[in-house]
Amino acid sequence: MTHPSPLAIAETYLAAWNEADDTRRKAAIAGNWSASARYADPLMSGEGRDGIAAMISGARAQFPGHSFALRGTPDGHGAWVRFSWDLAPENGKAVAGGTDMVRLDGAGRIESVIGFLDFAPSA
Amino acid sequence: MTHPSPLAIAETYLAAWNEADDTRRKAAIAGNWSASARYADPLMSGEGRDGIAAMISGARAQFPGHSFALRGTPDGHGAWVRFSWDLAPENGKAVAGGTDMVRLDGAGRIESVIGFLDFAPSA
Repeated sequence: MTHPSPLAIAETYLAAWNEADDTRRKAAIAGNWSASARYADPLMSGEGRDGIAAMISGARAQFPGHSFALRGTPDGHGAWVRFSWDLAPENGKAVAGGTDMVRLDGAGRIESVIGFLDFAPSA
Repeated sequence: MTHPSPLAIAETYLAAWNEADDTRRKAAIAGNWSASARYADPLMSGEGRDGIAAMISGARAQFPGHSFALRGTPDGHGAWVRFSWDLAPENGKAVAGGTDMVRLDGAGRIESVIGFLDFAPSA
């Protein structure tokens, strides 16, 4: 099948991080992530849909009122997609930013995410 | 074992790209890359030490007199390293730049490289 566009992948991904409702976030992850998906960045890691949903829930709890926004233009080749994001409070300045590399499975679902921090409070 | 630092990995990697002598480049790749190493960016791909050495040789032939230089500070976590580079002629302006994500094997050798272009003549 044709993979979703890098932009579509990035938007789907950030929507899961921005979803405040745990049940809706799990449903989004069930639809768009591989069952064996893995996530790792310098601060946290998660495995499987439930593990990743719980990880996102925990990260969100640390930044109430903040949301993730796409920075720049996603690109990709083969099974890989790259995009950058900012984390900011509503109408406020970004408190952190990063770049994620996503690997898609054969069905175009997120199989693996390797995240890096571009700037952060503690970096 | 302890992995080499992100800076050491980036410098070793770029040195292989900048090595003009095919024999010396193959020796450097034999020492620092896994036998099953893979490379893929939007323009080219290679597999195995010989395949990657040949790919680099071909890429170098397209940019005579140019070399790769590290841009910014390499970072990493777990088995992953990220760094950015510029390709420029001697004393000249960069003609291309990219960001590579390197995965190391258990022995600290380069196992996989996923490259992205940050800017390029045709991008």
